[in-house]
Amino acid sequence: MEKKNVFLKIEYDGTNFYGWQRQPRMRTVQGELEQVLSVVCNTDIKINGTSRTDAGVHALGQQASFEAEFGIPVERIPLAANNLLAGGKMAGCGDVRIISAEVVPEGFHARFDAKGKQYIYKIRCADEPDIFLKNYRYQMTEHLDVSVMREAAKYIVGTHDFKCFQASGGEEKETTVRTVYDLEIIETVTDAVKEMPSGAADRRRRIVQDIEIRISGDGFLYNMVRIITGTLVEVGLGKKKPEDIPAVIESLDRQNAGHTAPPQGLYLAEVYYDRV
Amino acid sequence: MEKKNVFLKIEYDGTNFYGWQRQPRMRTVQGELEQVLSVVCNTDIKINGTSRTDAGVHALGQQASFEAEFGIPVERIPLAANNLLAGGKMAGCGDVRIISAEVVPEGFHARFDAKGKQYIYKIRCADEPDIFLKNYRYQMTEHLDVSVMREAAKYIVGTHDFKCFQASGGEEKETTVRTVYDLEIIETVTDAVKEMPSGAADRRRRIVQDIEIRISGDGFLYNMVRIITGTLVEVGLGKKKPEDIPAVIESLDRQNAGHTAPPQGLYLAEVYYDRV
Repeated sequence: MEKKNVFLKIEYDGTNFYGWQRQPRMRTVQGELEQVLSVVCNTDIKINGTSRTDAGVHALGQQASFEAEFGIPVERIPLAANNLLAGGKMAGCGDVRIISAEVVPEGFHARFDAKGKQYIYKIRCADEPDIFLKNYRYQMTEHLDVSVMREAAKYIVGTHDFKCFQASGGEEKETTVRTVYDLEIIETVTDAVKEMPSGAADRRRRIVQDIEIRISGDGFLYNMVRIITGTLVEVGLGKKKPEDIPAVIESLDRQNAGHTAPPQGLYLAEVYYDRV
Repeated sequence: MEKKNVFLKIEYDGTNFYGWQRQPRMRTVQGELEQVLSVVCNTDIKINGTSRTDAGVHALGQQASFEAEFGIPVERIPLAANNLLAGGKMAGCGDVRIISAEVVPEGFHARFDAKGKQYIYKIRCADEPDIFLKNYRYQMTEHLDVSVMREAAKYIVGTHDFKCFQASGGEEKETTVRTVYDLEIIETVTDAVKEMPSGAADRRRRIVQDIEIRISGDGFLYNMVRIITGTLVEVGLGKKKPEDIPAVIESLDRQNAGHTAPPQGLYLAEVYYDRV
């Protein structure tokens, strides 16, 4: 058996995890994956993930890599691991799943070789909350003015010192300068009639405003996407003005930015690489 | 304060409940609601629910009633209770929610006065499971032939002794004769491209077949909807033929019916009453 370097693409529902990073006696995505991969590869596996997502944060396209000597063909790893992750239950899957696994050249590292990331933050505005989306959206009863949020977003795109959008508690970074490549706000308005099959008596009319904030950049500070979201929400509610944003950024002061939006709405969507 | 009889409409995500019925030291929907309503009404509240849904089963329109003397205006109960159920968190709601509360005449009872119910069972067939629907669908990789399922469903509609579709373990019923009013099977096929925003490299083509089984009747035996679903799934997979169904029903033997579909896909949709 020769040593292989394996590159994984992973999705997970973060609801029942204490975040990505391995912790003793806590259920974490990294811990769960390492446990299952160690069984599948029949050797002790430690993986390096690109993004240390917090508890409750989801991923559509997390990436990780590991180097090890093992026998199973790499293309069989996803199926074997996903069966174990599903626990053989009829519901068909676990809450974390390996989308793909491939061999990459020696020295390639999922985290250090990442060139950037995209996150999606999902907000739902409606008179009545949707209990089935409790863990998957930031839900609010107020509606947001998306046009002013888009004005505010323009000031965030680009290379800035984003210290004002950094929460304390993350790992120390050498610099708080980052480049936001793009910040798109997508709005979908649905005039939903919640229709019970028996007829009109049970209908409740609901205007639902679904908002997706899609933000990509070369890297993000601790809680940066959630604080940018909270700031944009405050703009959408009229509590802050788009023109206030440059001064917020220049102040380098977390106090001047908005609140930290809850983890449930956040999805790590994609990691960018030069290769792959 | 005079005694009032209150009629509630309730929705819940059954994922984190050990079913509807109150049990010591277990989180149940009835237990959670009684606890919160007792705070809101400032008196000990015991509620009668229409359907004792199992662990993992959801409700869009569960109904319950209770009689008590209390001060708060009945129309304020939903908001007050829902705030407590949400635990004041930013995500906006709990996993159980009171949709409406109204005063009904003395003697009206949510369970005994119910004339029937509708359940919806949701199935998702796709090459790849959706981890975010793990707790909300019966997921399978095979696709189902809906036309033969509809043929089979015709034999189930009507008044029959449905003993073959009854699981052991429920409460004793005087008779296993029930009337199924309607059994509709709705199919939605989506040719989904899971598109990552950066472009074509990450696209995965997926045909998703969503199936909803909508079944209404005057009453249902223990696990009856889930066993009917399991039987229809086996027809859809070609393991049973539609023409087999009459003999299955006539046999009165659980062994001849299909498997019990998992609870995640089941939703109590509506309860029927003559009044209201």
